[in-house]
Amino acid sequence: MFVMAVNVVDVSRSPYASLRPVPLDSVEVVSGFWGRWVNEVARVAILHQYRMLEESDRLNRFRWVSGRTSVRPVNSLFAFDDSDVYKWVEACGFYLAKREDEEVKGLVEEVIDDIVAAQEDDGYLFTEHHGAPERRWKNLTFDHELYCAGHLIQGAIALHRSIGEEKLYGAAVKLADLIARTFNPDGIRGVCGHPEIEMALVELYRETGERRYLETAEFFINERGVDSLRPPAEDKLNSTLYRILGGAEYFIDHEPIREMSEIVGHAVRALYLNCGVTDLYMETGEKALLDAMERLWHNFVEKKMYITGAAGSRYVSEAFGEDYELPNERAYAETCASIASFMWNWRMLLATGEARFADVMELTLLNSILSGVSLDGTLYFYMNPLASNGGYGRSPWFPCACCPPNIARLLASLPGYFYSTSKNGIWINLYGSSKATARLDGVDVAVVQETDYPWRGEVKLTVEVEEPAAFSIYLRAPGWCDDPRVRLDGRAYSPRPSTYLELHKRWSSRSVVKASFPMRVKTIASHPHVRNNISQAAITRGPMVYCLEDVDNKVDPRLVAVERRGGFRERFRKELLGGVMTVSFSAATINPREWEGRLYGSLESMRLGRRVRVEAIPYHAWANRGDSVMSVWLPFIDYWREASQRRRR
Amino acid sequence: MFVMAVNVVDVSRSPYASLRPVPLDSVEVVSGFWGRWVNEVARVAILHQYRMLEESDRLNRFRWVSGRTSVRPVNSLFAFDDSDVYKWVEACGFYLAKREDEEVKGLVEEVIDDIVAAQEDDGYLFTEHHGAPERRWKNLTFDHELYCAGHLIQGAIALHRSIGEEKLYGAAVKLADLIARTFNPDGIRGVCGHPEIEMALVELYRETGERRYLETAEFFINERGVDSLRPPAEDKLNSTLYRILGGAEYFIDHEPIREMSEIVGHAVRALYLNCGVTDLYMETGEKALLDAMERLWHNFVEKKMYITGAAGSRYVSEAFGEDYELPNERAYAETCASIASFMWNWRMLLATGEARFADVMELTLLNSILSGVSLDGTLYFYMNPLASNGGYGRSPWFPCACCPPNIARLLASLPGYFYSTSKNGIWINLYGSSKATARLDGVDVAVVQETDYPWRGEVKLTVEVEEPAAFSIYLRAPGWCDDPRVRLDGRAYSPRPSTYLELHKRWSSRSVVKASFPMRVKTIASHPHVRNNISQAAITRGPMVYCLEDVDNKVDPRLVAVERRGGFRERFRKELLGGVMTVSFSAATINPREWEGRLYGSLESMRLGRRVRVEAIPYHAWANRGDSVMSVWLPFIDYWREASQRRRR
Repeated sequence: MFVMAVNVVDVSRSPYASLRPVPLDSVEVVSGFWGRWVNEVARVAILHQYRMLEESDRLNRFRWVSGRTSVRPVNSLFAFDDSDVYKWVEACGFYLAKREDEEVKGLVEEVIDDIVAAQEDDGYLFTEHHGAPERRWKNLTFDHELYCAGHLIQGAIALHRSIGEEKLYGAAVKLADLIARTFNPDGIRGVCGHPEIEMALVELYRETGERRYLETAEFFINERGVDSLRPPAEDKLNSTLYRILGGAEYFIDHEPIREMSEIVGHAVRALYLNCGVTDLYMETGEKALLDAMERLWHNFVEKKMYITGAAGSRYVSEAFGEDYELPNERAYAETCASIASFMWNWRMLLATGEARFADVMELTLLNSILSGVSLDGTLYFYMNPLASNGGYGRSPWFPCACCPPNIARLLASLPGYFYSTSKNGIWINLYGSSKATARLDGVDVAVVQETDYPWRGEVKLTVEVEEPAAFSIYLRAPGWCDDPRVRLDGRAYSPRPSTYLELHKRWSSRSVVKASFPMRVKTIASHPHVRNNISQAAITRGPMVYCLEDVDNKVDPRLVAVERRGGFRERFRKELLGGVMTVSFSAATINPREWEGRLYGSLESMRLGRRVRVEAIPYHAWANRGDSVMSVWLPFIDYWREASQRRRR
Repeated sequence: MFVMAVNVVDVSRSPYASLRPVPLDSVEVVSGFWGRWVNEVARVAILHQYRMLEESDRLNRFRWVSGRTSVRPVNSLFAFDDSDVYKWVEACGFYLAKREDEEVKGLVEEVIDDIVAAQEDDGYLFTEHHGAPERRWKNLTFDHELYCAGHLIQGAIALHRSIGEEKLYGAAVKLADLIARTFNPDGIRGVCGHPEIEMALVELYRETGERRYLETAEFFINERGVDSLRPPAEDKLNSTLYRILGGAEYFIDHEPIREMSEIVGHAVRALYLNCGVTDLYMETGEKALLDAMERLWHNFVEKKMYITGAAGSRYVSEAFGEDYELPNERAYAETCASIASFMWNWRMLLATGEARFADVMELTLLNSILSGVSLDGTLYFYMNPLASNGGYGRSPWFPCACCPPNIARLLASLPGYFYSTSKNGIWINLYGSSKATARLDGVDVAVVQETDYPWRGEVKLTVEVEEPAAFSIYLRAPGWCDDPRVRLDGRAYSPRPSTYLELHKRWSSRSVVKASFPMRVKTIASHPHVRNNISQAAITRGPMVYCLEDVDNKVDPRLVAVERRGGFRERFRKELLGGVMTVSFSAATINPREWEGRLYGSLESMRLGRRVRVEAIPYHAWANRGDSVMSVWLPFIDYWREASQRRRR
């Protein structure tokens, strides 16, 4: 094994990063809630997806163009299908960082051979246009050439960092060099319809130290927003497609990045672009970039984010809607968009050291990201709606298969997000049983988390040092927690929610920090401008959002209404869904009988039926028992009475 | 003037029609609510739209292909743009039925010259493929050739019926003959991506008596639903477009018509198709067709229709959603879809004589159709959302300009829907000051309606006969009215809502029927499965749906909540919006202060503010004073309390 420092985002030398990640190979997540996801599920997903890549002809695309197969890959439909392979390779890269897994290693090496064999002499690598130089870079709007290149570069970097892989890495560098030669002020002035290359090039700059990659990333960011992606009017079909999808806004090409104040367009595109912009900021320190990111973040979190952390309100264009446009059944909430938000918030956390970004990471991870994969790792969601009338289930793969390998690379890299360091100490970003080691001012420090998080809010943190040293432990007080409590050396702290509590002292040998983040069942409302949630409540407990699924209940979740007197009872059910904390309560039911055959009627037709006891499960675990009827938001029948009692007179 | 019988749908000899329309030239609508719309607004719209047809190069398309202009028509973008002209021509046809208007007549004659000059020798007429026979009928999925032909035929029939026009009519017949020769079991087996030709061909059969047009219509209806519109996989762009729009369902090509039970797909396509199917039924009497139409009607009205009558819940695909999917801000609710529903319900009424269809016509007309045009007739809506956060206003025209001329032809033909006849008598379908004459068993009968409908529910009906005759007057008791009352000859009737009351007697000289349909302000709820309307109410009065618009109120309509104790007060304000009945009430307000900078929070952040008096206007009249914030559905704060009181124990 190498001496490694495997980071997803390696800002260890970035001048404008506030935090440095503790590399994922320095973190062990072996037990507890995350142990299963990071180890078992990630492996199952990687092996399952390998079979899918074969069956769906994704690998055969590469073999076909290089002549390694003579069977035309008819099951792969999209120009961007190469990227599914690259993301899977990236997942393998992170997965192999700490594990000797010959099966996975063998598979990824074969795949690398197939990929590299498809590279053209000058470095070009995009199977859709293989051997057709006249088609290169001609349809930047829709072709996804640079998008695929970005994923190739990220995949190659992951393997390079984790197992010192050189072959794919060399191919990626060669492609990046071609891109840098091609796109610049004296070359093609254009950008990719789907952002992604930006963050990949910044990362390649970090890996190689070659400034031209950073400059190319900056070029793409600067060229964006000048309407260069609009197809020529005479190209009627592409023009129609462009218009239907939402025009310049869909491509985040409607306005220069530094001027943006509203997050719009295709959610994954927008959030990947923000990753690249934040990465660029950490290298250049240009304030206008961070200011724009702050504006977009506030717009996102305060007006466009689902309570599960998900992003994207609109079908077809897979896009952000207007402020407060957050439909539940028709939430698009693509798994990739949640992952993209996680990736962006991670970069914002690294840039600023502010806990609010880690709060969004946690929320998104535990709810709208985990909902994207079945508990066993082999079935996926593309959309993650907040309510379902049934008929929507998980799939082992998709014709457009961006989400499954995105989940795999995230799970495989997850330990890399738990901890970070600054010059003053170690930061605990995410909670879960784990162990991290880091070197601070020449002293090796080990931090061990023991906790039943996210089911219980007690965290025991053991800090061990080789030799006494003064530094700080920064402990995130989660934003969802009203009364965080921390104890160290007999002293009690009550940090403000959504901040990092700094515990500074001279640590010697072994110290124990005890944190308590009481998890209470809450009923949450949304801003009154979210009209479809008016008079409804969502049930949360700690960082988890809950939902009612029909399989657990005798009544259709769409006919359940929460009452204040419902008496919430929490119970850990280890036999259910791999072990989950459920929340049960007594609920009112809506009697639908008066409504048969009618869509509209007198208010008097609304009547309540008998009370029932219902049981809610964590949202992320829904749809693991077949198609179901599900709802996160539930009518809250004391809503107006309580709001009236609080009337301002 | 000719002796005319100008019907939009001429079922006077259709064996399976229950009712025959009283032709629009036998109906006078000169005063009252409808007088202005039918006369002034229709004329203004026709003249305004003529200018738009010029400016937007719609007319120049025809002139360009025939060589009458040498300036390329760059402002007309879509292959189907010919149809805008044809619908305008149809509007002129109906408009000229009763009026000597030399200006309109002169314009339409010039336009006809331009159209006919563009026809090819064999009858083909579609400017997009003019002179390119190799492109004919090749892309039935997207090209709209048959759709445009249908509109041409309808326009030509209207003029033929109203002013005896022959030139355009001859061109239409020639085109129809080409279509009948081309599409048949031995020719091309295909259908148009956009239904429309079906009803046009049935109407041409009615006009000419030529059975081959009926057979061609039936052929198109029979060929639908066998997935013939799917582009070949190698046509990647059209395949992508097809998939994005919603595939076979979008085109209503997913299932044979006789098997359908759910209304799906592009709303205008679906509803136009239903018009053609119902037309076919009235000629052939095939029960399977009417049964399918009944199933689709129930699905539409009971699960997919907006309270305004509008159709289509989804943007981009302009399509029906799932059952109970009825978003308000993002209602697509295209003006054309409402008109299409009106047209279909008219045919269903003619086929069956059942009042429920006239109820939907009235609802749709007064709410979601009239909302599609400004009070002065020169500004239009394409989408008719049920709520707006501002920033959405009316336009004088659209790049895709289907809606404006659709409105014009509907307004111009409106008198033709008021009355119908059966062998037993005269049917009063719609209320409004008007006068109709009809011949029943050789006796001329005149019916005069005097009423302030839709503002007041009293209708005085004077029936005059040349000579005594026994027949019935069928008076529609509107479905919205709880206690309709009718008096004739000292006798009182209390018909069931949503039925036709038959008044049979031997009528002599002059009789007066007095109907009273009390209009009370109602608060209406929707089926609890319409999750976004839960705990909300819509205000209605008679057939009118109301909304709150910010320009009338001191408080943002999105922060208004209705209370039972609000004390609704109705008031006719003749100075407002051309004269409307408003509904004012005392409302609770939602205090948004706790929500600044937050999207989610404790239920305790929901609090009410001070009470305010607000005034609601008829929904159709909104957005006549610039962009505004508007909402039809309003939170009803006694909702849960009242529902609890009605709890079944």
